[in-house]
Amino acid sequence: MIRMENWLPKIYDEIEKRFEEEHLPKVLSLVRQPSIAGTGEGIEECAQMVLDMLNDLGCEEGHLEHYVYSPVVSAKLKSEVEDAPTLVIYGMYDVQPPEPLEEWRVPPYEGAIIDVEPYGECVVARGIANSKGPLVCFFNTVKVIKETLGYFPLNLWFVIEGEEEMGSESLAPFTKNHADELSKCLGVYLLSARQDENGKPFTTLGNKGILYFEMEARGGEWGGPQKLDIHGSNAAWVSNPIWRLVNALDTMRDENDHILIEGFYDDVAPLNEMDEFYTDRMAEVFDEDMYLNKRLYTSRFLHDKRGRDAQHALLWEPTLNIDGIWGGYTGPATKTIVPYHATCKVDVRLVPNMRPEETLAKIRKHLDDHGYSDIELITRQGTPYSKVDAGSAIARACISAMEQSGYPENTVWPIFPGSGPAYLFTDPPVSLPLVDYSLGISGQIHAPNEYFTVKGLKENEMSVAAVIWNLCRILEEEA
Amino acid sequence: MIRMENWLPKIYDEIEKRFEEEHLPKVLSLVRQPSIAGTGEGIEECAQMVLDMLNDLGCEEGHLEHYVYSPVVSAKLKSEVEDAPTLVIYGMYDVQPPEPLEEWRVPPYEGAIIDVEPYGECVVARGIANSKGPLVCFFNTVKVIKETLGYFPLNLWFVIEGEEEMGSESLAPFTKNHADELSKCLGVYLLSARQDENGKPFTTLGNKGILYFEMEARGGEWGGPQKLDIHGSNAAWVSNPIWRLVNALDTMRDENDHILIEGFYDDVAPLNEMDEFYTDRMAEVFDEDMYLNKRLYTSRFLHDKRGRDAQHALLWEPTLNIDGIWGGYTGPATKTIVPYHATCKVDVRLVPNMRPEETLAKIRKHLDDHGYSDIELITRQGTPYSKVDAGSAIARACISAMEQSGYPENTVWPIFPGSGPAYLFTDPPVSLPLVDYSLGISGQIHAPNEYFTVKGLKENEMSVAAVIWNLCRILEEEA
Repeated sequence: MIRMENWLPKIYDEIEKRFEEEHLPKVLSLVRQPSIAGTGEGIEECAQMVLDMLNDLGCEEGHLEHYVYSPVVSAKLKSEVEDAPTLVIYGMYDVQPPEPLEEWRVPPYEGAIIDVEPYGECVVARGIANSKGPLVCFFNTVKVIKETLGYFPLNLWFVIEGEEEMGSESLAPFTKNHADELSKCLGVYLLSARQDENGKPFTTLGNKGILYFEMEARGGEWGGPQKLDIHGSNAAWVSNPIWRLVNALDTMRDENDHILIEGFYDDVAPLNEMDEFYTDRMAEVFDEDMYLNKRLYTSRFLHDKRGRDAQHALLWEPTLNIDGIWGGYTGPATKTIVPYHATCKVDVRLVPNMRPEETLAKIRKHLDDHGYSDIELITRQGTPYSKVDAGSAIARACISAMEQSGYPENTVWPIFPGSGPAYLFTDPPVSLPLVDYSLGISGQIHAPNEYFTVKGLKENEMSVAAVIWNLCRILEEEA
Repeated sequence: MIRMENWLPKIYDEIEKRFEEEHLPKVLSLVRQPSIAGTGEGIEECAQMVLDMLNDLGCEEGHLEHYVYSPVVSAKLKSEVEDAPTLVIYGMYDVQPPEPLEEWRVPPYEGAIIDVEPYGECVVARGIANSKGPLVCFFNTVKVIKETLGYFPLNLWFVIEGEEEMGSESLAPFTKNHADELSKCLGVYLLSARQDENGKPFTTLGNKGILYFEMEARGGEWGGPQKLDIHGSNAAWVSNPIWRLVNALDTMRDENDHILIEGFYDDVAPLNEMDEFYTDRMAEVFDEDMYLNKRLYTSRFLHDKRGRDAQHALLWEPTLNIDGIWGGYTGPATKTIVPYHATCKVDVRLVPNMRPEETLAKIRKHLDDHGYSDIELITRQGTPYSKVDAGSAIARACISAMEQSGYPENTVWPIFPGSGPAYLFTDPPVSLPLVDYSLGISGQIHAPNEYFTVKGLKENEMSVAAVIWNLCRILEEEA
């Protein structure tokens, strides 16, 4: 078992010393390498750069595993401590496409450092926040700890994927193929930055799942033109697929925003004590005005909820959202047609214990029961929710590090309302706790002028060190 | 009053003689001149060409009247017959844009004659059918009649507009400014070709009106994001304008395609005897299979109507049609947002005695009554219906000429389900009968490879002569 030392202040000192001349240039070197999973641009080069960095850290068994699109980079850092447990480090090296290029203040792959109001000196580059900054900062921190202590207190297994931005398709076979070995690890630490634009840090204990599908109404046996758009005057004697889609949708959600799918809520699990506790804690620091006026630009929450009720809805309510709808003539001025098809995109956010397949089946049945068996459902994504509890060593390490960060109003999100591939680690057969937390003010991810404050990158490294230290402390206490 | 002669066979002979070498080249000369009202391309040149042709016919007072976009060409042919009545000839010289150019078999302004299955030799050119072919054919016919008889039996007032394809905005002030003089004329003859692809000729005694508007739902006091699209996970606590638009639309038309706007049908006039008569006549020759399978590509009519009921619906039912709908993310794959606005385009076809303004007011009231006062209605077009009866001399002349054409299953449409500017002539203060009829198989109007059979152009001239002759005959009988 690990011999605990009070080594954190030494690490902070060392990060201070090395950050500007050694760490920051290494961070910039990776954002200068494009890596777009969708097009494949720079993917192999970037994967190789990441592997080289891992080899430089002293990792063993480093290699690229090819599955669907981009290779998964896998490498293991063996601890000098005997019988040390293994922490899985999950990160990503791909980035969103930088378009529209003309909206960038600096070229997206230049690795420029400029002043960004109101944050001050920032790296502005594609991928700096999501998530090459946190990736290289973690490497830097490992190196500092290892060189300062003369050993690294844990085994690390780096799993760095290259298609997070397009559905993590390769991560599924990777975790499946390595399930047995993964399941013996301590947990998974996700590389990211978790500090909002007001400086409040947070960590998450899971995320909602998502079912994403298209609903398409086409002319068919029920009526409507089947082959091509016809002149609008024919609406006097021919049905319209847009009306059909509208009528079908209206059966699914009423004018008061109540979801009417039979059994939709049946699998929604009651909150356990810990989830209630963290939901209450979030509600205590919930800044309603900030959300309404600066984040959501809305005058009221759904069903006029306020305070904890609103907060509870965001975390624990499933959704039935129309992301987009289109059909017929959508150009300027006027054109009259009865179109032959109309489509919408719908996403359902799944809370524990809703499953994508069962939810889709309920929606299909609802449409059939209401006479809309002609409406086609085309599934685009079905990602289960992920949920871990707060009791694991890695969760407690993240929460402790966050509470010690000095930043007030830090928050544990018992579940995050977005979706992601975490279930690949947290669901059977791997069944590990997966937690994220680290500092660093950053933003504009998936948008032009993605940024990370220079100060935040340094604090990201320190916060990562704090997670490692707390994890070691907790493991020793438990030993 | 006109002295009647049996001159029609002589005119036919003369058209046969002159068509190929004299008439057809003149038709081609006009389609070779572009004239796009929307861009102004070639408009002034084309207007001048039309005016030159009218001057060549011996017209007086020929000039261009400028109002909104394209000038109206106005010219008068004075009859050598004393006290001859004046027939207004309403035509157009603008055409739809030819795009997409790559789909044309020949350049759209070349005036090429090629074989088109199954019609044989055709002029394929933008505007040949809609409506430069009928325009020049009419000029040719007038010249033949005048030269063959040594006089022209009627006064003609040519009103040829150049923005029919963009709403006839200049025609409104033209008819208003000349209302007094126009109202003293005999009637209006509209230049067109009225023979379907199966060779069946038809004439129309009016057309439906149209109210075209956009409905827009935006985030506002009711909820929903107001300024920009927000991440889809926020659907758990923020309303969605697409849902709002869907719910609002659903209150307007139910799942059985019944229009639910209060008072929507209040002003629908009962059919008079003549309208019933012609509706029955149409139903007798109504080819249900052809419509379902070759025109509409639909398996059934609205409300499962058949035969006369379906025919009646096309002619006499008002509509509430969604021409297009759009909002949120409509690209490939998946993206989750709660959009801040959603829009649809709606057209209402107005039957006698529905008026655009009153109908819009009813829709506004319906939305307000159902709690959707936030949904904005943006009017794009409000064009009244036009309705004339079959008893006028020009209507009887067209119907007689059609019945004498030798083409079976000819049809009088008591009202046409499309819309147009005819009301400018038929409504007060002008209040003239306006009728159309002439032969010529043509098609693909507003599409690539617009065509008119060469044989049809010649028959168009003959049918126009037959209308003039029948009109003279009827006027003499009435004298």
